[in-house]
Amino acid sequence: MIIVMKAGAAKKDRDVVLKSIRELGYKPHIIHGETRDVIGAIGGDHGKTALQRLETLHGVEQVLPILQPYKLASKEIKKEASLIRISDNVVIGGTQVVVMAGPCSVESEAQIIESALAVKKAGAHVLRGGAFKPRTSPYSFQGLEEEGLKLLAKARDLTGLPIVTEVIEPETAELVAEYADILQIGARNSQNFALLKKVGQLQRPVLLKRGMSMTIQEFLMSAEYIMSEGNQDVILCERGIRTFETATRNTLDLSAIPVLKGKTHLPVVIDPSHGTGNHHYVAPMCYASVAAGADGLIIEVHPDPEHASSDGAQSLRPEKFEEMMAKLRLFAEVDGRTL
Amino acid sequence: MIIVMKAGAAKKDRDVVLKSIRELGYKPHIIHGETRDVIGAIGGDHGKTALQRLETLHGVEQVLPILQPYKLASKEIKKEASLIRISDNVVIGGTQVVVMAGPCSVESEAQIIESALAVKKAGAHVLRGGAFKPRTSPYSFQGLEEEGLKLLAKARDLTGLPIVTEVIEPETAELVAEYADILQIGARNSQNFALLKKVGQLQRPVLLKRGMSMTIQEFLMSAEYIMSEGNQDVILCERGIRTFETATRNTLDLSAIPVLKGKTHLPVVIDPSHGTGNHHYVAPMCYASVAAGADGLIIEVHPDPEHASSDGAQSLRPEKFEEMMAKLRLFAEVDGRTL
Amino acid sequence: MIIVMKAGAAKKDRDVVLKSIRELGYKPHIIHGETRDVIGAIGGDHGKTALQRLETLHGVEQVLPILQPYKLASKEIKKEASLIRISDNVVIGGTQVVVMAGPCSVESEAQIIESALAVKKAGAHVLRGGAFKPRTSPYSFQGLEEEGLKLLAKARDLTGLPIVTEVIEPETAELVAEYADILQIGARNSQNFALLKKVGQLQRPVLLKRGMSMTIQEFLMSAEYIMSEGNQDVILCERGIRTFETATRNTLDLSAIPVLKGKTHLPVVIDPSHGTGNHHYVAPMCYASVAAGADGLIIEVHPDPEHASSDGAQSLRPEKFEEMMAKLRLFAEVDGRTL
Amino acid sequence: MIIVMKAGAAKKDRDVVLKSIRELGYKPHIIHGETRDVIGAIGGDHGKTALQRLETLHGVEQVLPILQPYKLASKEIKKEASLIRISDNVVIGGTQVVVMAGPCSVESEAQIIESALAVKKAGAHVLRGGAFKPRTSPYSFQGLEEEGLKLLAKARDLTGLPIVTEVIEPETAELVAEYADILQIGARNSQNFALLKKVGQLQRPVLLKRGMSMTIQEFLMSAEYIMSEGNQDVILCERGIRTFETATRNTLDLSAIPVLKGKTHLPVVIDPSHGTGNHHYVAPMCYASVAAGADGLIIEVHPDPEHASSDGAQSLRPEKFEEMMAKLRLFAEVDGRTL
Repeated sequence: MIIVMKAGAAKKDRDVVLKSIRELGYKPHIIHGETRDVIGAIGGDHGKTALQRLETLHGVEQVLPILQPYKLASKEIKKEASLIRISDNVVIGGTQVVVMAGPCSVESEAQIIESALAVKKAGAHVLRGGAFKPRTSPYSFQGLEEEGLKLLAKARDLTGLPIVTEVIEPETAELVAEYADILQIGARNSQNFALLKKVGQLQRPVLLKRGMSMTIQEFLMSAEYIMSEGNQDVILCERGIRTFETATRNTLDLSAIPVLKGKTHLPVVIDPSHGTGNHHYVAPMCYASVAAGADGLIIEVHPDPEHASSDGAQSLRPEKFEEMMAKLRLFAEVDGRTL
Repeated sequence: MIIVMKAGAAKKDRDVVLKSIRELGYKPHIIHGETRDVIGAIGGDHGKTALQRLETLHGVEQVLPILQPYKLASKEIKKEASLIRISDNVVIGGTQVVVMAGPCSVESEAQIIESALAVKKAGAHVLRGGAFKPRTSPYSFQGLEEEGLKLLAKARDLTGLPIVTEVIEPETAELVAEYADILQIGARNSQNFALLKKVGQLQRPVLLKRGMSMTIQEFLMSAEYIMSEGNQDVILCERGIRTFETATRNTLDLSAIPVLKGKTHLPVVIDPSHGTGNHHYVAPMCYASVAAGADGLIIEVHPDPEHASSDGAQSLRPEKFEEMMAKLRLFAEVDGRTL
Repeated sequence: MIIVMKAGAAKKDRDVVLKSIRELGYKPHIIHGETRDVIGAIGGDHGKTALQRLETLHGVEQVLPILQPYKLASKEIKKEASLIRISDNVVIGGTQVVVMAGPCSVESEAQIIESALAVKKAGAHVLRGGAFKPRTSPYSFQGLEEEGLKLLAKARDLTGLPIVTEVIEPETAELVAEYADILQIGARNSQNFALLKKVGQLQRPVLLKRGMSMTIQEFLMSAEYIMSEGNQDVILCERGIRTFETATRNTLDLSAIPVLKGKTHLPVVIDPSHGTGNHHYVAPMCYASVAAGADGLIIEVHPDPEHASSDGAQSLRPEKFEEMMAKLRLFAEVDGRTL
Repeated sequence: MIIVMKAGAAKKDRDVVLKSIRELGYKPHIIHGETRDVIGAIGGDHGKTALQRLETLHGVEQVLPILQPYKLASKEIKKEASLIRISDNVVIGGTQVVVMAGPCSVESEAQIIESALAVKKAGAHVLRGGAFKPRTSPYSFQGLEEEGLKLLAKARDLTGLPIVTEVIEPETAELVAEYADILQIGARNSQNFALLKKVGQLQRPVLLKRGMSMTIQEFLMSAEYIMSEGNQDVILCERGIRTFETATRNTLDLSAIPVLKGKTHLPVVIDPSHGTGNHHYVAPMCYASVAAGADGLIIEVHPDPEHASSDGAQSLRPEKFEEMMAKLRLFAEVDGRTL
């Protein structure tokens, strides 16, 4: 921590700061500047929160943290990229661009089977589909729940595609983990710490979506919650942040890809469907994501978008998805990767 | 719903739209404009989500909803302001400006008792204090949990102040409800729908904080989740939204007061401590909130902010809180209200 | 400047940093931390931009500035509040809350005279009205230009109210200054540096509006542009920042009042009309502004809002304005000020 | 325009609305819904602003515009993509991905010549470099002005690269146009309407940067300002929008590419240097931009970033730029384009 004193702060104010630093188990080190003093507090990070509070002391201008608050998620701890195994032939974080695709919600056996066959045919590696749905309105369709999980499992049996589906509360997390290959944490639950701890205790890879107004640092702190409970298999998913722009549902932050790649060893996946909210914009954002280095994509595909029970406007039809996959493969190859 | 066709859309595209509207149980009504057609879909709101999906049809420019998606929270349902009784002599939503004050976290018996006595002396009506703490970092202090609830209850016994404390997961919600007079839902859980439903089933007023990037409409939808489960006693709390500005921790949106007053009958409370993140800015924002018509305030007060285990930088010392309350009273009186 | 080295940075990288600091005319001072080194660069601020660039060097984690980049606008230079004289009996920055009111645009002699008489009767101190209008669309009404200035001058002659009106380009700035008592710089021109320099050379108080996504620091830098050219009479005006919220036209940032009061000696004025975009929300935001310590208000008042040529939806009718002023006076008095 | 009445609005309120619509030269058309009436106003767009103001009338819930406010920039007017010729062999908007590269500021003859030779060698098509610099601080380097323009012209003579440079005020716009092949309008001037009109009267292509908090619609309106003065050669440049995220200088909005491609015929260029503010993130964002369909890129390249007089932290060294260009070419080819 760096404590910046105000210009012309009194010596007695500075002495109180020095004393407080020592009381917290740190060693103070003063730099006398031309207009003000700056004090470094040397020590571990046991007392960082306490040091931050020195900002309330008289004569203190600001307290600047110099360390990142996450550890397990950090590249400082683990330099090489984490490879997360999803199934026998699907590993995310390496040279394979992993595509997860399927409908927003599981609606019926016919719908999920048709979707699974279609996305498999186009080359997807994982089937997505929601059984428990967190909806903004209590009056919207809330998902088929366990019945939906069973239908997903049937689709997996038929196609061999592992499945990713959302967990919305600690209570049903174990139930979902019985069926799912990847547990998804939605954007609205990205700081539901009770839920993060719960999935941290389960033996399943977690796809953690970034919250709508979550900074990269907070995103990594949420990953850290899961990892600190023992589960290291966290896949980070950028799905658009909230801005003033209304032409898209969210603003897809693709610079999050290189930023995260610089800070963490965890794989990064992009959700262009929620990120844009409009099926017209999905394919270009898929290409851009892979070109920017994303480890994977999660895409909404629905056999009949006009009759989807949620998010129809942002779902691709199977034929469009197939077309997109063909071109995406070429972009992956330029980057020395496979699809 | 209003469906706007593209300029020059083909007749057959329009016919598909008309057919779809009828299939969904609505009656279409066309307005032929100079450059494009606009179609109204007349009916109840059973099929609103389905209508929204017509946006994916060929020839459709956009679909505009014209109804608010919340009902129970709406002034269209209940015109007069809701009065929510907290205790024998504390009612929020009427002419009494209700002040909730206390430390961010319950840390020890001495600390919470000292805080309770101090805020009571200054005129606060409710004691706040966190026992279960949702912290961004898994390595930060997570609260005293049930022990903290017991200490809050002791402070209530001693001072007569009802208590407000946070619920962070469905599992411990009933436990918290045994002790608390008001259940607080934090900003990070404002769209944790499982938790909202759970507190909707409990017989306790709920203080619902606005999420960091939640629109007013989504805020009311979250209130609707609680109300649709049977609990009508929802207090809305604006606590700052996330913007690009870094001089304050969040941007306190005081215009939310008149906006909410125009749309809902529920009381509105302001949290200037989290809203600004800096104790220097708390008093002016308290005055502004009451002048703008807020029904109450929730304020962090700590006997020893430098040693607080969380949020010290934004906590008022008891003497500053007392000073603020004296002036706040005068502002309340100008507005024909009491403190 | 504080240069934070990466954990485990090589000694040779650190030596390059030390050498660069010395080359820029600064004295380096190293703090050896437990996991990384931190280097202070001691000296004036001639080389701050250059120091910032050290962030590109190998082994450097980040460069933290510790000084504010503005000087003339800063409280470090001038502790007492600046009083800016507008006319014989209007001074802003002291105990008088100054209210500027009038239509968005000057439309006709009858309209501006009627408006001026109405706002004067209700107790306003300054007449506002746009003659040169910066409009988002080239097809919108662009103002009466010099003819509008003449009508404003007529209204001043009749009522004695000084006038504030907008300057939109360097070329016509002197013309506007011949008529206006206060030169307004609009939000869209808040970083039009050529214009800021130009009004810095004129002998007229400047009302500088905050840009839609301008930080407090950038706002003060724009004031600094004007002041560095010789004109110290800058009035800062918060008019709403752009956020994700759509219930209001902008989000009025009232915490900017105490934040600015802590950093600068310049007076602060609030524009609740543009800040909210809706006449229903104007009065509560006026009360809140004064309670929070604003030095003044600038409010749109129009005798016939439905027929206004711009911004009708946010304009108060004269009778509503009068009602608001009566209550505002009481809030000002609580704060020991007059209206 | 669609006027939505409040639920249960009185018949007399509705009649006032109908009368107002007719007075404005529109034909009203009522749809009687189950809970409220909705009124379409049929006619051209002469009275759109006036119709918007009906929102202030009693009984009106909201007024919804259904037309885009821009015309010349719209695809409704011109379906095929605009090709803008920069020089004999550089045309933007077609199958050639146009790369503009060079230093943020022109600093000296040696620096701009060295930069020009380096970017040409790597395959850039246009040389960028600032002579007039709009800087946030009045104390920062403001550019070499006309001397800088002359040095740019020398670099063009030597390399054959056309040049793009910024115009910061109407007064010097013609001077800049004597030297430049493309006139750049910076983000801070993106709603400086006097400047937009001025460059609309000059015979030079304009590179218009999106403002920091400008919506896509406002961006197209600013293009419309230039086009409505007669200059149709507008190149739109996304350079990052302002959000809460602090890990990057701005948030580069790549979804703006497909959104703009859907609405306008004008070419779209991306500036990943300002968009991210960090040279580490530039190359991935270049690849992503081209994959998403951008017509070009504008990139900061400096032979000696640590000694750049502005924006060193986001500049690529020539060898990194060359490396990036080699890979970029492959991505362009996948998309059927050339570099």
